[in-house]
Amino acid sequence: MKFGGTSMAGTERIRRVANIVRAQAARGDEVAVVVSAMAGETDRLVNFCREANPLYDPAEYDVVVASGEQVTSGLLALTLQAMGCKARSWLGWQVPIRSDDAHAKARIEEIDAPALVASMQAGEIAVIPGFQGISPAGRVTTLGRGGSDTSAVAVAAALKADRCDIYTDVDGVYTTDPRIVAKARKLKNVTYEEMLELASVGSKVLQTRSVSLAMKEKVRVQVLSSFIEEGAPPADSLPGTMIVSDEEVEGTDMERQLITGIAADKNEAKITLTRVPDRPGAVANIFGPLADASINVDMIIQNIAKDKGETDVTFTVPKSDLLRTQTMLEERKEQIGFYRLISDDKVAKISVVGVGMRSHAGVASTMFKALADRGINVDAISTSEIKISVLIDEDETELAVRVLHTAYGLDAVETAA
Amino acid sequence: MKFGGTSMAGTERIRRVANIVRAQAARGDEVAVVVSAMAGETDRLVNFCREANPLYDPAEYDVVVASGEQVTSGLLALTLQAMGCKARSWLGWQVPIRSDDAHAKARIEEIDAPALVASMQAGEIAVIPGFQGISPAGRVTTLGRGGSDTSAVAVAAALKADRCDIYTDVDGVYTTDPRIVAKARKLKNVTYEEMLELASVGSKVLQTRSVSLAMKEKVRVQVLSSFIEEGAPPADSLPGTMIVSDEEVEGTDMERQLITGIAADKNEAKITLTRVPDRPGAVANIFGPLADASINVDMIIQNIAKDKGETDVTFTVPKSDLLRTQTMLEERKEQIGFYRLISDDKVAKISVVGVGMRSHAGVASTMFKALADRGINVDAISTSEIKISVLIDEDETELAVRVLHTAYGLDAVETAA
Repeated sequence: MKFGGTSMAGTERIRRVANIVRAQAARGDEVAVVVSAMAGETDRLVNFCREANPLYDPAEYDVVVASGEQVTSGLLALTLQAMGCKARSWLGWQVPIRSDDAHAKARIEEIDAPALVASMQAGEIAVIPGFQGISPAGRVTTLGRGGSDTSAVAVAAALKADRCDIYTDVDGVYTTDPRIVAKARKLKNVTYEEMLELASVGSKVLQTRSVSLAMKEKVRVQVLSSFIEEGAPPADSLPGTMIVSDEEVEGTDMERQLITGIAADKNEAKITLTRVPDRPGAVANIFGPLADASINVDMIIQNIAKDKGETDVTFTVPKSDLLRTQTMLEERKEQIGFYRLISDDKVAKISVVGVGMRSHAGVASTMFKALADRGINVDAISTSEIKISVLIDEDETELAVRVLHTAYGLDAVETAA
Repeated sequence: MKFGGTSMAGTERIRRVANIVRAQAARGDEVAVVVSAMAGETDRLVNFCREANPLYDPAEYDVVVASGEQVTSGLLALTLQAMGCKARSWLGWQVPIRSDDAHAKARIEEIDAPALVASMQAGEIAVIPGFQGISPAGRVTTLGRGGSDTSAVAVAAALKADRCDIYTDVDGVYTTDPRIVAKARKLKNVTYEEMLELASVGSKVLQTRSVSLAMKEKVRVQVLSSFIEEGAPPADSLPGTMIVSDEEVEGTDMERQLITGIAADKNEAKITLTRVPDRPGAVANIFGPLADASINVDMIIQNIAKDKGETDVTFTVPKSDLLRTQTMLEERKEQIGFYRLISDDKVAKISVVGVGMRSHAGVASTMFKALADRGINVDAISTSEIKISVLIDEDETELAVRVLHTAYGLDAVETAA
């Protein structure tokens, strides 16, 4: 079971978490709990580090910021004990959760679970701070922001857990953002790959790394809400969304929709370079320097070459990198040989995601037709095996999501009770 | 070097501490620094524990409260690095600082220093969180409130340090409280035993345990102020008070005063039981139950037996235990057989302390004469080898301290520059 910072923010909320954990343990399950720091605490600690040393040593940064989860793991153990449960905390170095030595963005390499397993078999609930590990040199490491989801999946894998329940402030994965489409439906299950695509296009329910790890280690992950009512049924009535393998979905869910979900991402900006010479190497001149600067270019379209061997090149970068990208390209204007740089940060990327796409034709044409019928102009298109994304005007985001949600038959149907 | 919570409270103050540390290291000294949590932080964490579980498991309490020093040790290392010093933090389990398993009040058993020494010899300043250790079972322990002084002395002993400099919010040990006596003088040195007696009578510059440990391990401890001016001379010009052995004092300080200091303690209350039967076992009936209840009885006077085999018994207990003591004694009134219980919490204990007392007669008579000359009534007396304490009316505390300070020749003499 994993609980995030909002769930751990203060004594009262920790008590709610402890109640959920106790209910699970009361069913006879062996339970390990991974916790985040109290909401806001990591930011406070990061700020101290920045004030102390703007170019901070990540090894010492880790010593400071890992303390937030240390506090909540001790407090949850204490709260469980107050309810009569046997419980103890296991810090990263105590488990141990072995990571590499890439401080502040470490990767878990191995979890030696025998002591932990023995304690759990003796009836103790294990409380483990997320986000932290120990390096080969025996120093404290952290996994990077949001790393607690990854800790939870890694611990579940090491324990060969039946399930990894990730409690969040949403109650599952939806067909789309319910704040945009009132008829959005909660999914009973979603595949790892779909979850990865949804995460990469702005549906940040889980950290991407944790989903990749779950896929690799075949950990069954359930996303569910920590804000359930006291006395609600325990988690194995599966009120959330299960993230599982393709096979499991295909085996159990014959009625599954072709498209699983629709996501909108407003964090991209569009850049067009006009009249770029249409010759070998021109494109490398544009994207090579951006790659060197770790600017993540997403969609790329090269328009049909016009007269005189010139072409327009359009692509997207994260909005936060737009200024830096513009500066770099203007500095290389002569070398690249473009005529004008046009940028637009009022764009949105709309994606339809679903493993069903692999075996069905016509998914893309449904999308283009639905958008065209409502007069929504598509600026760029990119596809993967289980995803189609289009770039549109930002003002049309909500309209596009609603139109596609209906077009793919995802709208919830009100049923008479 | 050890810095307390006031010195570590926030980025700016940590920068001041780092400046002091850097100046010391710049002299070519190998330096280890022991730090407390930011002022107020330990209270905040203790509060969380109490809220989570009023009868908290001390092992989990330790996990939570030890995080305060973890944060400041990382931040001091970062701040030193920002100034161009090589520095790293060493958590209790990393050194390791091995303690027993008496969680929340653990005692340090052994410090394995080779890795620490190697790092310091390689030019790294070691920053060590005070107050924490690791139990034989590999769990986090803390040493009890104020334990960082003890950590500092223990680390100094393990490193065979030339000196343990404890930076506080006073600039040394004085002949008496300078707020009471303007002519109080800062002592150049004081012996371990004197320091212990001064600590036990209310002069709380250092935690008593740390002084005992320093005496046992022969660590030279210097008390000095962390609020020195930027650019002030580094610590080995010895601006504070050195705490050293008897031999060292006798060898180096021929001009030493007979009496080292005068302390006042207003935390005691006086109880008199009248007309207690003067027979064997009567006193045991009084003090046995108090000892069982961990009530610390200090001064005891049994007045000269009166007619009919009865006697008055007077003693002191901490003010905080007065009510509890009264209740216990009234419950046993028949058994003990006293007539009346008279309590007085408006008393003060005045103590004169000095190793010179051992070899000089007349110290006590000077005290009694000086007090009598000013009409100050003495209610009770207790003595140790290097201390004489008297109990007086609380209203006369300041007067008594001033009178004795003068009587023993401790007043500072203004000298022309």
